Amino acid sequence: MMMGDDVENGNLGPYLDRPRTFPNMRSKPYTPLDEGPPEMAQISEAIRDGAEGFFKTQYGTISKMAVLLALVILSIYLFRNTTPQQESSGLGRATSACITVAAFLLGALCSGVAGYVGMWVSVRANVRVSSAARRSAREALQIAVRAGGFSALVVVGMAVIGIAILYATFYVWLGVDSPGSMKVTDLPLLLVGYGFGASFVALFAQLGGGIYTKAADVGADLVGKVEQGIPEDDPRNPAVIADLVGDNVGDCAARGADLFESIAAEIISAMILGGTMAQHCKIEDPSGFILFPLVVHSFDLVVSSIGILSIRGTRDSNVKVPLEDPMTILQKGYSVTIILAVLTFFGSTRWLLYTEQAPSAWLNFSLCGLVGIITAYVFVWITKYYTDYKHEPVRTLALSSSTGHGTNIIAGVSLGLESTAIPVLVISVSIISAFWLGHTSGLVDETGSPTGGLFGTAVATMGMLSTAAYILTMDMFGPIADNAGGIVEMSQQPESVREITDVLDAVGNTTKATTKGFAIGSAALASFLLFSAYMDEVSSFAREPFKQVDIAIPEVFIGGLLGSMLIFLFSAWACAAVGRTAQEVVKEVRRQFIERPGIMDYKEKPDYGRCVAIVASASLREMIKPGALAIVSPIVVGFLFRVLGHYTGHPLLGAKVVAALLMFATVSGILMALFLNTAGGAWDNAKKFIETGALGGKGSESHKAAITGDTVGDPFKDTAGPSLHVLIKMLATITLVMAPVFL
Amino acid sequence: MMMGDDVENGNLGPYLDRPRTFPNMRSKPYTPLDEGPPEMAQISEAIRDGAEGFFKTQYGTISKMAVLLALVILSIYLFRNTTPQQESSGLGRATSACITVAAFLLGALCSGVAGYVGMWVSVRANVRVSSAARRSAREALQIAVRAGGFSALVVVGMAVIGIAILYATFYVWLGVDSPGSMKVTDLPLLLVGYGFGASFVALFAQLGGGIYTKAADVGADLVGKVEQGIPEDDPRNPAVIADLVGDNVGDCAARGADLFESIAAEIISAMILGGTMAQHCKIEDPSGFILFPLVVHSFDLVVSSIGILSIRGTRDSNVKVPLEDPMTILQKGYSVTIILAVLTFFGSTRWLLYTEQAPSAWLNFSLCGLVGIITAYVFVWITKYYTDYKHEPVRTLALSSSTGHGTNIIAGVSLGLESTAIPVLVISVSIISAFWLGHTSGLVDETGSPTGGLFGTAVATMGMLSTAAYILTMDMFGPIADNAGGIVEMSQQPESVREITDVLDAVGNTTKATTKGFAIGSAALASFLLFSAYMDEVSSFAREPFKQVDIAIPEVFIGGLLGSMLIFLFSAWACAAVGRTAQEVVKEVRRQFIERPGIMDYKEKPDYGRCVAIVASASLREMIKPGALAIVSPIVVGFLFRVLGHYTGHPLLGAKVVAALLMFATVSGILMALFLNTAGGAWDNAKKFIETGALGGKGSESHKAAITGDTVGDPFKDTAGPSLHVLIKMLATITLVMAPVFL
Repeated sequence: MMMGDDVENGNLGPYLDRPRTFPNMRSKPYTPLDEGPPEMAQISEAIRDGAEGFFKTQYGTISKMAVLLALVILSIYLFRNTTPQQESSGLGRATSACITVAAFLLGALCSGVAGYVGMWVSVRANVRVSSAARRSAREALQIAVRAGGFSALVVVGMAVIGIAILYATFYVWLGVDSPGSMKVTDLPLLLVGYGFGASFVALFAQLGGGIYTKAADVGADLVGKVEQGIPEDDPRNPAVIADLVGDNVGDCAARGADLFESIAAEIISAMILGGTMAQHCKIEDPSGFILFPLVVHSFDLVVSSIGILSIRGTRDSNVKVPLEDPMTILQKGYSVTIILAVLTFFGSTRWLLYTEQAPSAWLNFSLCGLVGIITAYVFVWITKYYTDYKHEPVRTLALSSSTGHGTNIIAGVSLGLESTAIPVLVISVSIISAFWLGHTSGLVDETGSPTGGLFGTAVATMGMLSTAAYILTMDMFGPIADNAGGIVEMSQQPESVREITDVLDAVGNTTKATTKGFAIGSAALASFLLFSAYMDEVSSFAREPFKQVDIAIPEVFIGGLLGSMLIFLFSAWACAAVGRTAQEVVKEVRRQFIERPGIMDYKEKPDYGRCVAIVASASLREMIKPGALAIVSPIVVGFLFRVLGHYTGHPLLGAKVVAALLMFATVSGILMALFLNTAGGAWDNAKKFIETGALGGKGSESHKAAITGDTVGDPFKDTAGPSLHVLIKMLATITLVMAPVFL
Repeated sequence: MMMGDDVENGNLGPYLDRPRTFPNMRSKPYTPLDEGPPEMAQISEAIRDGAEGFFKTQYGTISKMAVLLALVILSIYLFRNTTPQQESSGLGRATSACITVAAFLLGALCSGVAGYVGMWVSVRANVRVSSAARRSAREALQIAVRAGGFSALVVVGMAVIGIAILYATFYVWLGVDSPGSMKVTDLPLLLVGYGFGASFVALFAQLGGGIYTKAADVGADLVGKVEQGIPEDDPRNPAVIADLVGDNVGDCAARGADLFESIAAEIISAMILGGTMAQHCKIEDPSGFILFPLVVHSFDLVVSSIGILSIRGTRDSNVKVPLEDPMTILQKGYSVTIILAVLTFFGSTRWLLYTEQAPSAWLNFSLCGLVGIITAYVFVWITKYYTDYKHEPVRTLALSSSTGHGTNIIAGVSLGLESTAIPVLVISVSIISAFWLGHTSGLVDETGSPTGGLFGTAVATMGMLSTAAYILTMDMFGPIADNAGGIVEMSQQPESVREITDVLDAVGNTTKATTKGFAIGSAALASFLLFSAYMDEVSSFAREPFKQVDIAIPEVFIGGLLGSMLIFLFSAWACAAVGRTAQEVVKEVRRQFIERPGIMDYKEKPDYGRCVAIVASASLREMIKPGALAIVSPIVVGFLFRVLGHYTGHPLLGAKVVAALLMFATVSGILMALFLNTAGGAWDNAKKFIETGALGGKGSESHKAAITGDTVGDPFKDTAGPSLHVLIKMLATITLVMAPVFL
């Protein structure tokens, strides 16, 4: 454990006997960057120490695993067969192994940096937002949005630049397109390691962070809110600092790594598909098709920045003036971003995807992008419908709390399961329409059959992610606002300040839920693309066409069964980890309340450090099992069936079984993640709805039942659900990188 | 509503002011069949009236829908294309339509009768078991087992006889095997309508019954146990009769229809595969391969009867002597049955599957049967491990109740999700081993390639179901014992009698849970077989080979996505139906307690009839939506993609998409059903474990949290879970019967 010493030893300075105020932990001069009054700064410092300590330990563990895996990949690639393309381009085993491992390590490193930036910004912005909330709501909103925006731009930018650097390096190093060496259309396949490295780190970051944040949250709530009846983020709760640290490591750092990996995976798969298609269609200069995704995301940086800057505030505004609904302000910014994104998207397609072979293809692809943008918008809307208490579903859920804990849970589970239906229909319609738009684009291969279908789907995915930086900003905004609220509560600010951060926090909850819908939608599309890349990869290694995955073959069917099972087991372990860790927290908090009876009267200081240490070490321990399951299963299954296929005269059996595993896991993973995220979000907001005074309000039996629902929803929506997004994409990249094992 | 008048009007005779005894409802002479003292007989009569009333209304609705569907099938078949086989055998459209519709209606009718017999026996046996419990535990056990056994034998017998009659009728009517007419190997495909009819009725029976039983149970518990603190089945609870009625219509009638349909589907699919294989291998007399499943199940009737009769009891035994664990007695009977089943199975394979072309094939198939029998046994064991409180998982779950409602639910959900892993591995191993045993049996087709693989899987399924009658007996035993316990409690018998029925009830809970594991295992295998039959059926109609379902095609992938989504949505609606109806019951029971304050002191009579009427009408209403979804979705999806395929030059697209829908729905359905059943069973037993005095015992906070878990588990394990078993097989048969719509 490398926690900050103060937190670790609970040595937060002299605890003063000052009722209803948080004790001074350490005196600190007022800084020009406005971190508010000293008590705010001190709380913020405790959070910062906890978050940075956990981050270091967590990423220390992850890096060791990454290095180990890099060695495994290296040895596999040193023994793998080479493809005809590689041979013709003189790319030997050693070079190929080095390229893959280097890409993997760079991806892992960039993902780590993305996570670190998210966390770094968030632990510094939280206190500034709390401080600004003392002056003006609009200013607090602006600081939170800009802080989130900064992280988001860094994350998206790093994905683009990382891939661009790798691409350029390989291009020069391998002498691409010069006679006797590699063709440019084969280059993107070498970048796959980057995507795998990113998703590998994101998986453990999300698991560890997700377990941390929710174990602390559930543990704090179960004793604090339910047993002792003290408010959320009350300084008397020994788990409150751990809870606030969790928001940073679980939501900011992990979501940064998650979105980084989404964008990286999507850029690489689109580059692969663009290259393959350009090759099939014998397009003279295929670089437009290959570089298109990088350009789209570069524009994303520009248009999202404009959107973020369009949210303005001023120090002069009167705090007493009723605040415009922050959701409306954020949505205005989103509208600005979307309009600009559509325009630049059409421009980019005309610029890069115009080809004389099919003069109107660029228009079809623009429409594909539009399909993606609309899909993203609809996804956001559906998630809002199911998780916002302005709408029917959450109100029905709240009503079911009035007949008890049991009916609340049944209703929440049903709501979550039901909420999978419309997103699936939307995804289905967009895949089919994008595919057909691409198919009818006029691009044909040597034999004259249309080939643009899959690339059309890829373009739709890019459209969906063309406002990623803005979406990520809204997402990062949530935990920053949440933390600011915590600091305000802990430093016992006046009610008016608390009101401002409460409003921001509520908006943050909604944006967090909606970006999850967005993340799943893009994961579904990106996986489908990577699946096609996998089929191509297998074809080139097996030196025979690998076009079909036939689930009528018993072994392939079983691969599918195992894939779906993997999702169930992974979710089980992720949820169970939170449950177990939360139980440890509950016991520790109960112990402190018993052993230090003065805590409740503010006479004795709770030992925040012990809760932080318990949660940190438990989350590090608990993230290993589900993470290892996700990484080991496809490799083991593929290898076993490869051996079985070898003995039963069934070539490519391993590759086929893994393909089925991947597809079934993707489908089940999308559904499970939708279920978990929506149910969790709805429970959270049903509780908030009751807290507005409905159905008996705070303290009523309905409220208690609603808190149970919220507790159950916590690991669903913030641990298992988001980990599944990452898992889906990790599976898609691991099968690509590990393909030599199955063949 | 056609409820018995007494129940409907709450007119249960004069309510006497007799504290701590249940009021006399109607005087009735003591009958020689020993229905116990008059108060028992009266309660039993109220249950019987309620159950029979609901059954009539429910099956009235179902029959109307069945007739409507029959007309739809008729019109589809009158316009369908005919297959080359049909043309060569002179089987016209009209004949083919009549055959399918007749088979459908007969299947529906037989399923209805199977359900009726289950319910009829159960409402008569319950009171006899309660009465016998006053004398001897062993006698009570014997009566319950024999009653269950009678229903089970009727159900299995009817499946065998129904199919045998249809087969014989078609054989004679169509002049099979005479020149110019149909070949015997094509005959089994005509029986598919029977399987569809059976699963159609079973689906609605399970949905309606499952909603009924759990809505009444949850409603009764939430107010009675949780709010008022009165024991389960207390006569003061207005919902208690509805709860007891539910056991009969939900567990006995519905499970009868479910198993009937499992066996019918499995016999028909095995006959189809046997016929196809015999034809490919040019076996001279294929009738052995076709009739094999009927013979296996005829032996099932014999060996299960012996197993049931091996459970003996005598009136002379002393009630004070400690009862041998009933589970041990039942398992002894199961061992007897299994040993005999293995012997007769080997005998039947030698008799019917011996062919000179491959002299050792019968031995391979015997081993396939053994694989099936072992799989069934392992499934029963795994379910016991996860749901019995003697083992680790349920104890951990109980422990998590001590930190609150929330952690209990999180732990239960994780347990359920995790419990899917081992069964999936077992099913995978058995499918592969049975397939390879069949594949290497020596049977080869004209081209010399081995063909026995799928038939091997079919034989394994038969092995699995070769003790179906005994398994069903153990299953039916549960609700009868549960009801007997209710009658004992309501008629205020001495503690010693209550103890006996409590032990039987606990055993019944375990057997119910384990037979569900068994039902899923067989559903998984049977669906996989029916899927092959579907591929064959499409091939023959399309007059081109249809061997592959390639999920790399976007539309086919979407079919899979929709199939998995169907499972999530169906489960959502089934659970939500229970939640909604339970809320109605809660409100009614609360109303009665407020309006009739004398109920709690036994001074006033609760109005049982109103609860019965509320639950009955709500379940009839609520069963329609999920049922219709299950039936309409595959047809609509298949038809839409057929049209899409037509316009995009993609023949057979509809059939392929439906195939993917079917496979993904099967996989997700198996996992979801395992999750729901196991989580529900584990919650139930965690509560029972705490009630034995662990972790604070009855009335403690842990117990309250455990009751919440149990309430949530109720719709999981007794409504959505079992409905999914039926749904999986219904999907497999509906795609076969409705294939003309997709082509």
